Amino acid sequence: MIDDTKIRDYIISPNLSGEDLTQEVAGVDQLGNRIDVSVIEERPLTIFLNNQEIVTAMTIGDYPEYLALGFLRNQKMLSNKDKVDAIDFDAELNSIVIRTKRKTNYEDKLKKKTQTSGCAVGTVFGDIMDGIDGLKISAISTKVSHLYSLSSKINRTPSLYLKAGAIHGTILCHQDKPLVYMEDVGRHNAVDKIAGWIFDTGTNPRDKILYTTGRLTSEMVIKTALMQIPVLVSRSGFTAWGVNIAKQVGITLIGRLRGQRFICLSGESKLIWDVDLSQIKNVAK
Amino acid sequence: MIDDTKIRDYIISPNLSGEDLTQEVAGVDQLGNRIDVSVIEERPLTIFLNNQEIVTAMTIGDYPEYLALGFLRNQKMLSNKDKVDAIDFDAELNSIVIRTKRKTNYEDKLKKKTQTSGCAVGTVFGDIMDGIDGLKISAISTKVSHLYSLSSKINRTPSLYLKAGAIHGTILCHQDKPLVYMEDVGRHNAVDKIAGWIFDTGTNPRDKILYTTGRLTSEMVIKTALMQIPVLVSRSGFTAWGVNIAKQVGITLIGRLRGQRFICLSGESKLIWDVDLSQIKNVAK
Repeated sequence: MIDDTKIRDYIISPNLSGEDLTQEVAGVDQLGNRIDVSVIEERPLTIFLNNQEIVTAMTIGDYPEYLALGFLRNQKMLSNKDKVDAIDFDAELNSIVIRTKRKTNYEDKLKKKTQTSGCAVGTVFGDIMDGIDGLKISAISTKVSHLYSLSSKINRTPSLYLKAGAIHGTILCHQDKPLVYMEDVGRHNAVDKIAGWIFDTGTNPRDKILYTTGRLTSEMVIKTALMQIPVLVSRSGFTAWGVNIAKQVGITLIGRLRGQRFICLSGESKLIWDVDLSQIKNVAK
Repeated sequence: MIDDTKIRDYIISPNLSGEDLTQEVAGVDQLGNRIDVSVIEERPLTIFLNNQEIVTAMTIGDYPEYLALGFLRNQKMLSNKDKVDAIDFDAELNSIVIRTKRKTNYEDKLKKKTQTSGCAVGTVFGDIMDGIDGLKISAISTKVSHLYSLSSKINRTPSLYLKAGAIHGTILCHQDKPLVYMEDVGRHNAVDKIAGWIFDTGTNPRDKILYTTGRLTSEMVIKTALMQIPVLVSRSGFTAWGVNIAKQVGITLIGRLRGQRFICLSGESKLIWDVDLSQIKNVAK
């Protein structure tokens, strides 16, 4: 049994009170009846690092500071050594400026970006593959019962997805507790917001689990590796390259987690089978 | 009743015989049993326009020529006036070069890209919004019975999605017939392949319907507008900006098409209600 009170332990839960995040749109249904439908907002946010324009992201618009910080971190334009002096968000101009004490290495990065901008997966491909060369994540053990608890809690958490659809969620978890639940129109944005939150709060990522509603593509696995999170879990499926990278860096990769079913394609030796298998067998047909 | 033989009328159907498109990966299921799972391939494809490297896309790898042509078309780096002289695909280097007779305007485009590269939705944001300013699509009427036929045929078509999951499909249709079925890890790639096929074959887009398994985001609607296709249909949901752009350019926008349910949020006056509503009422609860 899941303890319902625990779901309320989120440090950040989905932003249901944010009035600007959904919009009522008038249309018709299959019977020709007039209906009003809640749809997700999607707006540009232009991210600057000091004086340099870096990228325009399409986002629902919440937590712009975490999105900007996380994007720059996951692009390796901001390192642990960079001290963020100020963050200036301008809601009217849809822009945010991250200001650092010393000059960052973004100019070199931006030059590289011009050459290989891998827009197709939402990130700078050439750059980011460099970033995981030789990277090794310290593995942690994961209880199967925790996977089931997380899945159940997350699926029952009121979210923008349940309200309006067309949105991805990424949730930072510790053991069987979801801690920070971010949503966005792009799954990479939701992950970047988590990265920004970790960077901003100085939270230790090395004992955490990252849960995503999106697919386990190379991009998702690479971002998880850059964030030093050892376990990545999804209700969706895998790509072959995502699996290869997870094996290479040592990430435990679990996909197709629905009900009591799941598949583990990397790091299965780190799973602790603490659930009565005969019980699962009855449900997992 | 759907005539099964019609499903075989595809000009291009999903690439199930493509050996390189999926991979068997060993893992464990929720019982700890060893299993082999089909997962989708994902590999980089670097697109060149003449001597200039433009982008590295993550793709399953089929139809690289259509992906490259369609990407450049939808980025407005190739226009109707540009004559493609040669297409050189190198499978070992994961690269493809589109060669044109005269110099294209890509250098200006690339300069703009450096400034505003909107990786977050997989396309060059600053550029692409310019492209739809003042654009108007000639509306066509759409029969509701055709929407149901298309949905049923497409859902029952053997696909990489049904085989391995974690992939999006985009299907070019005419009336109640699906014609060209493209799949890819990114939904924008699947759409770009359709754009490339249209460009390469000189097919008239103005009487077509585009069906996508993905969400109706601003990017999807903009690409559809640039392709001059008047109707965009999805089993998934909407974003508010996607709806706004569809209204602005005059695209009929239908989402959440599942079974006999759907929602139309733009162009509903162009729907022809040729289905017995009392029959639908019984199913659409």
